[in-house]
Amino acid sequence: MTDAVGATPSEDAAAVAGWAATSAFDRMWAALEPIGREPSTGGYRRFAWTRTDHDLREWFAGECAARGLDLVVDRAGNQWAWWGDPDATPGRAVVIGSHLDSVPDGGAFDGPLGVVSALATVDALRAAGVVPRRPLAVVNFVDEEGARFGVACAGSRIVTGALAAERALGLTDTDGVSMAEAWRAAGRDPELLGPDPETLRRVGCFVELHVEQGRALALPPDGEGGGAEAGPVERAVAVGTDIWPHGRWRIDVPGEANHAGTTRLDDRRDAVLGLAAVVQSARAHARRHGCVATVGKLAVEPGGVNAIASRATAWLDARGADEGAVRATVEQVRDEAAASWGATTREESWTPTTAFDPALVERLGRALPHAPRLGTGAGHDAGILASHGIPSAMLFVRNPTGVSHSPAEWAGPDDCHHGVMALTTVVTDLLDATTPGVDAPPGVGS
Amino acid sequence: MTDAVGATPSEDAAAVAGWAATSAFDRMWAALEPIGREPSTGGYRRFAWTRTDHDLREWFAGECAARGLDLVVDRAGNQWAWWGDPDATPGRAVVIGSHLDSVPDGGAFDGPLGVVSALATVDALRAAGVVPRRPLAVVNFVDEEGARFGVACAGSRIVTGALAAERALGLTDTDGVSMAEAWRAAGRDPELLGPDPETLRRVGCFVELHVEQGRALALPPDGEGGGAEAGPVERAVAVGTDIWPHGRWRIDVPGEANHAGTTRLDDRRDAVLGLAAVVQSARAHARRHGCVATVGKLAVEPGGVNAIASRATAWLDARGADEGAVRATVEQVRDEAAASWGATTREESWTPTTAFDPALVERLGRALPHAPRLGTGAGHDAGILASHGIPSAMLFVRNPTGVSHSPAEWAGPDDCHHGVMALTTVVTDLLDATTPGVDAPPGVGS
Repeated sequence: MTDAVGATPSEDAAAVAGWAATSAFDRMWAALEPIGREPSTGGYRRFAWTRTDHDLREWFAGECAARGLDLVVDRAGNQWAWWGDPDATPGRAVVIGSHLDSVPDGGAFDGPLGVVSALATVDALRAAGVVPRRPLAVVNFVDEEGARFGVACAGSRIVTGALAAERALGLTDTDGVSMAEAWRAAGRDPELLGPDPETLRRVGCFVELHVEQGRALALPPDGEGGGAEAGPVERAVAVGTDIWPHGRWRIDVPGEANHAGTTRLDDRRDAVLGLAAVVQSARAHARRHGCVATVGKLAVEPGGVNAIASRATAWLDARGADEGAVRATVEQVRDEAAASWGATTREESWTPTTAFDPALVERLGRALPHAPRLGTGAGHDAGILASHGIPSAMLFVRNPTGVSHSPAEWAGPDDCHHGVMALTTVVTDLLDATTPGVDAPPGVGS
Repeated sequence: MTDAVGATPSEDAAAVAGWAATSAFDRMWAALEPIGREPSTGGYRRFAWTRTDHDLREWFAGECAARGLDLVVDRAGNQWAWWGDPDATPGRAVVIGSHLDSVPDGGAFDGPLGVVSALATVDALRAAGVVPRRPLAVVNFVDEEGARFGVACAGSRIVTGALAAERALGLTDTDGVSMAEAWRAAGRDPELLGPDPETLRRVGCFVELHVEQGRALALPPDGEGGGAEAGPVERAVAVGTDIWPHGRWRIDVPGEANHAGTTRLDDRRDAVLGLAAVVQSARAHARRHGCVATVGKLAVEPGGVNAIASRATAWLDARGADEGAVRATVEQVRDEAAASWGATTREESWTPTTAFDPALVERLGRALPHAPRLGTGAGHDAGILASHGIPSAMLFVRNPTGVSHSPAEWAGPDDCHHGVMALTTVVTDLLDATTPGVDAPPGVGS
């Protein structure tokens, strides 16, 4: 082997692994870039069980085959690519990966960064000569965004049983196509859809790498001022600690239908004015309590340009690090809307804090001692598995724009490579692997 | 004939006419009441060229046949029922009537009150022995509300040429059925649809009686406090003077798509917050300028519960007695939305004041010396005919709720009867009629 300048044997191994991982990463990233991209917006439209989704799944299968991984599709349609025999040591496998689907006009990173990084991690492990003592899988969860059928994390919810098969099959897209019909169109038998304990029994732990969906890593630690990709390398990757408590509420503001041209202002009961007040109240109370609250979906009845609204509905999404703060925000919005506008508020969903496995988080923290720890306001497949009792955790890669679910979502190439190396470090540890270090193949590493 | 208590011959004739008219009115009103009523809301769903519309048109034809009126359907589908030969004295006919269709879950009065009152007026004229010197028609305009195909006053717009045949035929309802297809389904030939100058050439003037769509007549003249049906009889009916200037604007507020759970409040550009501000700004400026402004239709993109809006659109409807005030209101809303939220405002329509024919208004005012004069913020077929150069005017019947386009729309029986008598008085004058008064048939009038 060549003698890298100043390299100790282990530094040498790391350089080899880094080279293998980053070149593989860049090649895979370039191959994925055109799939499902909408030219008019620059955003991705990668929806479950479509032709685009098929292309992504075929791409994933091809990358796994090229690495000699054994591809297994579970009863929810998730793809698992195995290195080592998972049934030889049930419940001990290390699983990494994420998803490839997107929201409408979403960004390139949310999901694919985790899948590509996981595949690149396999390359890094092999380039470094790592010999795993446990099986490893790279997983591609299907339909994480729920963009087509309306239920997020559908693949992980179905495989764990959190989403009943019957309900899943009956979900419809905006064209009225059911998931059962979509499965048939994709050449799958919907009769087989359901929970898959055989698959989950293999899993010892799951680590999902994901682009950060805010700017906590890009901002300086005190939260003041703006950061950028050029920030310190120690802040390129964070260890996820938990998924914030979050919920969804429906607020109905009553009004009185009337003619927009002939009704005096004093005689009106205009539900849209109440709606406007609800939107502002949600923002104000969220700020006061240090959490986030959003109205992103509205409905107005009868909805005519010349009709005073007889009803207006706002859907409120509220989240935060602290359950009490989220609850207080929503209660104040609800009480104000009721007192001033006679509005009624109904909770549509509430998910308390999903803490990732503390021992796993600690172990990731020890492997990445400089990495900040971050909670997240977004739901993830890792959260679904965690709720199912599978030790799970996440790594977040710095996103200087802080934007997600949009083409502006971003992670710089260096930070992506740091993400792969962080995942490689973590997985090496989790695999109880031996790392000869001096066994790197000749001809590389300089 | 009997000797009515204290009645002079002319008072006697009025009593006979009143009895004939009110009993006919009540009978017709009862017959119309169930047609197209939705049991779940109590509102009417009478949409153009549906089965319900067919039933209403058949009912109208039957009432006209019972009176010996000659029914002619014009090239827009409007029904004209003639008393006297309109072609003997072209351009001299007196036309009264309104429409029978409704908005979704509309009230019973908007439209039908004018048609039923016009038919009852024929009865009153005949009971009083009036001998018209001009032809009289009762008209039922089709599709005034535009509830099905989206264009208000479609029947009068088509017959005058204000709505081109090609455009009308291509309009579609929410099920994608075009007006051409609806005509065919109703047994009409869409090839015939178009302007009909032959019909319009007959018309000397048009008087449309309509339920008031506000509370100007129910409130005391100074506009303070609440009135009721029990208010003074002099305020049961008003003479319409003009249709307020009105317009429609589309206001687009830009935002930045982002994740509702992970984006810090300070990093957001949430279009829905701008929308809320636009709604409040419109109300505030309208109040300051003494006009009305309404946001009754909204749209949000992408419209997901967990998505910060990248765009929010408000449609602004603004009207008022004074063009300058309406313009100033909209300009201030527009400027504030642009300055604070980067919003763009586009005018979708603008209709200046439609003044009813001044000589006709004066003549109605002389015939009904106690009747207040009122402008209206709503569009009407009378406005379309006026814009086409046909002398037109309106009478408004008191509506104590002030509500319209809703089941709460209301006019009391006594006020409805006053409306018929006012229309009879006006039409008697316009017909240059002789009114013998003493020629009433024996056996009635006591």
